[in-house]
Amino acid sequence: VKHTIASIPGDGIGPEVIEEAIKVLRAVEEIHGNLQFEIDSYDWNCKRYLETGRMMPEDGIKTLAPYDAILFGAVGSPEVPDHISVWELILPIRREFQQYINLRPIKLLKGIESPLANKGIEDIDFVVVRENTEGEYSNSGGRLHVGTPYEVVVQNSVFTKMGSERVIKYAYELARKRGSKHLSVATKSNAINFSMPFWDEVTKEVGVDYKEIEPKFYHIDALVAFFVSKPEIFDVVVGSNLFGDILTDLGAAISGGLGTAPSGNINPEKKYPSMFEAIHGSAPDIAGKGIANPIAQIWSTSLMLEHLGYPEMAKIIVDGIEDTLVDGKVRTPDLGGTASTTEFADKIIENIRKY
Amino acid sequence: VKHTIASIPGDGIGPEVIEEAIKVLRAVEEIHGNLQFEIDSYDWNCKRYLETGRMMPEDGIKTLAPYDAILFGAVGSPEVPDHISVWELILPIRREFQQYINLRPIKLLKGIESPLANKGIEDIDFVVVRENTEGEYSNSGGRLHVGTPYEVVVQNSVFTKMGSERVIKYAYELARKRGSKHLSVATKSNAINFSMPFWDEVTKEVGVDYKEIEPKFYHIDALVAFFVSKPEIFDVVVGSNLFGDILTDLGAAISGGLGTAPSGNINPEKKYPSMFEAIHGSAPDIAGKGIANPIAQIWSTSLMLEHLGYPEMAKIIVDGIEDTLVDGKVRTPDLGGTASTTEFADKIIENIRKY
Ligand SMILES: CC(C)[C@H](C(=O)O)[C@@H](O)C(=O)O
Ligand SMILES: CC(C)[C@H](C(=O)O)[C@@H](O)C(=O)O
Repeated sequence: VKHTIASIPGDGIGPEVIEEAIKVLRAVEEIHGNLQFEIDSYDWNCKRYLETGRMMPEDGIKTLAPYDAILFGAVGSPEVPDHISVWELILPIRREFQQYINLRPIKLLKGIESPLANKGIEDIDFVVVRENTEGEYSNSGGRLHVGTPYEVVVQNSVFTKMGSERVIKYAYELARKRGSKHLSVATKSNAINFSMPFWDEVTKEVGVDYKEIEPKFYHIDALVAFFVSKPEIFDVVVGSNLFGDILTDLGAAISGGLGTAPSGNINPEKKYPSMFEAIHGSAPDIAGKGIANPIAQIWSTSLMLEHLGYPEMAKIIVDGIEDTLVDGKVRTPDLGGTASTTEFADKIIENIRKY
Repeated sequence: VKHTIASIPGDGIGPEVIEEAIKVLRAVEEIHGNLQFEIDSYDWNCKRYLETGRMMPEDGIKTLAPYDAILFGAVGSPEVPDHISVWELILPIRREFQQYINLRPIKLLKGIESPLANKGIEDIDFVVVRENTEGEYSNSGGRLHVGTPYEVVVQNSVFTKMGSERVIKYAYELARKRGSKHLSVATKSNAINFSMPFWDEVTKEVGVDYKEIEPKFYHIDALVAFFVSKPEIFDVVVGSNLFGDILTDLGAAISGGLGTAPSGNINPEKKYPSMFEAIHGSAPDIAGKGIANPIAQIWSTSLMLEHLGYPEMAKIIVDGIEDTLVDGKVRTPDLGGTASTTEFADKIIENIRKY
């Protein structure tokens, strides 16, 4: 079977970790025996923006559409305002391809210590399902009386029934698949008084088809506190675009840092390509030094394989990562070691090959 | 000197902890010698709502206006929807009295262990300045095509120049007072593309008068992660209403839990009364058992004394709390002890009296 993959390495450490992720895919081809990845690389990044005035070409979305999946590194550079690198590349891809699920496992890997005292791998093992196309990131709003003492700025969060329903349904399905008795729901209906009560309503409505799963509503402020004080109570957590964003960076922090946290931007219907990216950014401070932790990107690649229908291949990647961490001899500096990105990835690949 | 205080004990554990806070005030009267508190109590709570249909009387705001300060317990009950107990009591008080600063110290007290491994009292000691009157809590928005598959809900965050400027200015002033070299600013201008770039602009503009203080902008997702991974980098943090809310519950979690976290809703001009409340809620699950931790409310009372102009009295309260914690013999169950609310508070008062 052949799969076509579009690779967008991006800026900073993006290309460094993407290179290793592709090596992993090559190893998977050999291990599986009947699997082939045709990978095309696109140089859509801040350098390109500075040269051409565009992050991606005008027909960028059209170019990506035929691929089976997109492997995305990291984008961002001190010379380009964030809102350009974000609104002209990542966000349009998420939206145009209806990648309405941002799937983010929060799992403490074997061999990594949580910064939370007394919390181990059995305590930190859940998934955040983040809405990924609307809500607080709606590009809707405006400014009035600009530059005067009377200036007023309005930012609109836009929630649709369609958009809320589909992500909440996905979260319930995932909870069912995992055998959960409950679904944790991020809200703030006590203060954000139009969108969040609606979100709660839709949750209850969709829940009618999932009677065995109890929705548990947590105000976002309480929820972040519980991520620290009792992460063991969570199994599947669903949240809006902004709340999911906040929860997953926090989730990365409690499970050992951004160097390991993966994500999938998923179009569950597979009508469009899904995109797999590390949660971390381009990290200009360590770019070019060859010391970036490749785990987040490699784990994201594992999520891609799962999405493409190869759960066993996905699993041996995570197992290979964990074996390497447990062994502990080869690690990048962020995990207390002295290995380079490549040395670390090679060791992981060696361990994957043992399966 | 005589000060008039309005006390609103509220629901659940609210009255239990307010009772102890008032005992502390009585002790302070004796210790100071020339200070007197005239305290009137108002039964504005969910019980009242269920009986009369109102959380507070129609002229509630007028009733509170002449007081020097308000001591607020906690409000909320399973029988009353949150949006009523919140929008008909706390939020109107915050707004009508222009309590535009929500001041929340994030400080690990001596004798308490942080859930963060390897972080001690020298690492967790900062203040969050939260905007408290507008932004994401603007009660502005609406619903269209209600109950159909095409329903759209819009929630408006409204930021004014006046409202942003005054809280940011306060934060810079506080940073200056604390001798900080930088002010940490919560933003999300890469994705929330009208209000947050405006917030950043106002921060830079106000900063012109505070050249020795560098504003450091953190996207809220990165910021919550840093609260866990390196809390020691913060001294003063300023954020919008929602971001400040999220950050302070998380701040409470890293400094040992909601049982100890205090807050002041402050009108810096003292044109209107300020309100001092524990961050925690009414905790219906433990209400009536006499085991609530009174520290958050007592510490909030200390913030009130500071606001009223008695920094020495404010300090001995916090010292008395810390002495009690370090001694460690008398503690409520949430801190691993077996003492009742009253026993714990009495011990704290005993220790305050030693100063
Ligand atoms: C009760 C709720 C509306 C309130 C808020 O979000 O402001 C509370 O969480 C707080 O932090 O004081
Ligand atoms: C870059 C930014 C807009 C993005 C987001 O907030 O979605 C990032 O933080 C993420 O979580 O993927």
